[in-house]
Amino acid sequence: MLTSQKYYLMAPGPSMIPERILLEMAKPIIHHRTKAFEAVLEKVRGQLKSVFQTKNEVLLLASTGSGAMEASIVNCFSPGDKVIAVRSGKFGERWAEQAKVFGLNVIPFDVQWGDAVDLNKFELLLNAHGDAKGILCQACETSTGVFHPIETMAKLIKKRSETLFLVDAITAMGITSLPTDEWGLDVVISGSQKAFMLPPGLAMISFSEKAWKFNQTAKLPRYYFDAKSTLDMAKKNQTPFTPAISLIHGLAIALEMIETETLPKLFARHKRLAQATREAVQAVNLELLAKSPSDSITAVVAPHGIDGEKVFSHMQNKYNVTIIGGQDHLKSKIFRLGHMGYCGDFDILAMMGALEMTLKDFGHKFEMGKGVAAAYDHDSWQNIAFLEQA
Amino acid sequence: MLTSQKYYLMAPGPSMIPERILLEMAKPIIHHRTKAFEAVLEKVRGQLKSVFQTKNEVLLLASTGSGAMEASIVNCFSPGDKVIAVRSGKFGERWAEQAKVFGLNVIPFDVQWGDAVDLNKFELLLNAHGDAKGILCQACETSTGVFHPIETMAKLIKKRSETLFLVDAITAMGITSLPTDEWGLDVVISGSQKAFMLPPGLAMISFSEKAWKFNQTAKLPRYYFDAKSTLDMAKKNQTPFTPAISLIHGLAIALEMIETETLPKLFARHKRLAQATREAVQAVNLELLAKSPSDSITAVVAPHGIDGEKVFSHMQNKYNVTIIGGQDHLKSKIFRLGHMGYCGDFDILAMMGALEMTLKDFGHKFEMGKGVAAAYDHDSWQNIAFLEQA
Repeated sequence: MLTSQKYYLMAPGPSMIPERILLEMAKPIIHHRTKAFEAVLEKVRGQLKSVFQTKNEVLLLASTGSGAMEASIVNCFSPGDKVIAVRSGKFGERWAEQAKVFGLNVIPFDVQWGDAVDLNKFELLLNAHGDAKGILCQACETSTGVFHPIETMAKLIKKRSETLFLVDAITAMGITSLPTDEWGLDVVISGSQKAFMLPPGLAMISFSEKAWKFNQTAKLPRYYFDAKSTLDMAKKNQTPFTPAISLIHGLAIALEMIETETLPKLFARHKRLAQATREAVQAVNLELLAKSPSDSITAVVAPHGIDGEKVFSHMQNKYNVTIIGGQDHLKSKIFRLGHMGYCGDFDILAMMGALEMTLKDFGHKFEMGKGVAAAYDHDSWQNIAFLEQA
Repeated sequence: MLTSQKYYLMAPGPSMIPERILLEMAKPIIHHRTKAFEAVLEKVRGQLKSVFQTKNEVLLLASTGSGAMEASIVNCFSPGDKVIAVRSGKFGERWAEQAKVFGLNVIPFDVQWGDAVDLNKFELLLNAHGDAKGILCQACETSTGVFHPIETMAKLIKKRSETLFLVDAITAMGITSLPTDEWGLDVVISGSQKAFMLPPGLAMISFSEKAWKFNQTAKLPRYYFDAKSTLDMAKKNQTPFTPAISLIHGLAIALEMIETETLPKLFARHKRLAQATREAVQAVNLELLAKSPSDSITAVVAPHGIDGEKVFSHMQNKYNVTIIGGQDHLKSKIFRLGHMGYCGDFDILAMMGALEMTLKDFGHKFEMGKGVAAAYDHDSWQNIAFLEQA
């Protein structure tokens, strides 16, 4: 529907795409077996390492994040290998199921949706399964907005030479600092449609030296997602198969934007956006789902008597602001707000404005304007250098 | 490099993308779990069936064509299953290797690069392997430009209830008529960056009823490429994982353009472009590689003493026209011209102009202008209704 009403995409991904990226991808396509494209790949490879905070190669796959989740399994393991899979939401369940389909012996570590990993329980389970070859965990679980204690989990796993830590950072990379090498994250996955400000269809995956060793003996069959052949070609600024050319051109611009902002400011901005959102939401008498909330997504409990799905659809249909609802058993019970990537401080005010109007339409009890005001009030707003030069 | 010199992409894929598709994909992205996106998917699903000439669902995968080749294998077979793989070029070898990696018993049917399948030899091999569960063959082999006798091969295979015919139509669908149901093609694959006039990153795959029966007992593990869950979601105008949203929006425009042109005229145009190219190339004393040339790609033998790679790079660097060279053992020996998708009759003249200039630069003996004239001269040019309304 054509309308002049401004559209805001404040969902947990895809996130809004900067105009200059859209225009970059709208340029005439070039062939991938050319010096011009190799130069783009070379630049992207270097900048991706900076964002992933790793000296290892960050491989590009022409797939969405779920494809990279599959790549992590087939490149590191053999049928029958034992892995512990943290299941704290939809995406944890997906990864566990995927590992099971490929014949792994999956020990589920079930965490109530909305909770973070309890480190004591995790350590107990880890000790009970000394033969586990891998631990699968989301950094941010997109279905609940929880951020797991990745740094401490990594410390526990790092001691064990025969166990890899595989981290799904699809909704965390480029939002919260995840120093891959410093923390010792063995496999780290991300996707294009969150902090990287692109359409979906491009995935990234890095492997530590330890993970590359696992790769040498991993027996699961792989071809399209084969990491070794992708690495070999990447070193020549090429890909084994036709790459997602237009997305990689867009990625080059996204990485330039991230480089200009600098990583510390990128992380600080996302922290600020998330804090403003959390305070705003609570100021209009709403409750957060996540006990340990991420800076990527805010999951909000739908107020008593109001269907979370209706909050989402009403906000979209009446105010042209897209948030999203809950998944599986949280459907109708929550709604989720995204504040990732190309999201400015004032977008939080816009989102809260639409949310307050929606809540009022549904008869929720709160004082109009309190949410927007709370976002403003937040301490950190006083210290923003909005257009500070890098 | 910024230049005002007009750029022509006349490669075997990616092909040129219509401006209106580039602009469609440059619109603000919308979320995939919305009525608006479901409506786009519904329309695309119907129109894809028309192009594939099938009543079965054409599934969309967020991958390139090589991902769909993998999907065809893991969805139809079990480890140890015997398949006959036609290896007549780079892509036939890729599919055979992929099948081998996934534990299939691959009987190679080797065809000299540049030749088409010999039907007598094929029938003999087919009879010698009555237990073959599948035959893998490219419709057009992109590395040589050959079009294989798919219709007759299908007739031979159709008699056998326990054998599937899997056809890689990445560089053939939407160019040459491939009536999937009428001919009895069991699995048909295509990709976005050829006749569908899009960037790479979206693949299509259809399964016959017979193939869906194989799917029920196929034991190879699959998740990202699982056809059954993709089908189940497609019926609800959804996808099991995040789809390639922007490419699907672009596809909707591409399919509208194809519908407006109509299939008979789409096929006739590609036949005309290919014939004009073949006559033009021969008129400047060049030899065609393919004995049975496709209407998608023309592979040309590099003249004695002239390196095919240099023809390709010189044409690009000096004239801003991208064709491409040969692959593997045909590297330097051939160059390949693409005339697919958003390619008009006059583009053949532009391409031939640049090729003639290049050949002259390298001292090849021929009469300047003969190539362009031969393209013009071709009978069929007299009968083009260039802007005929649909």
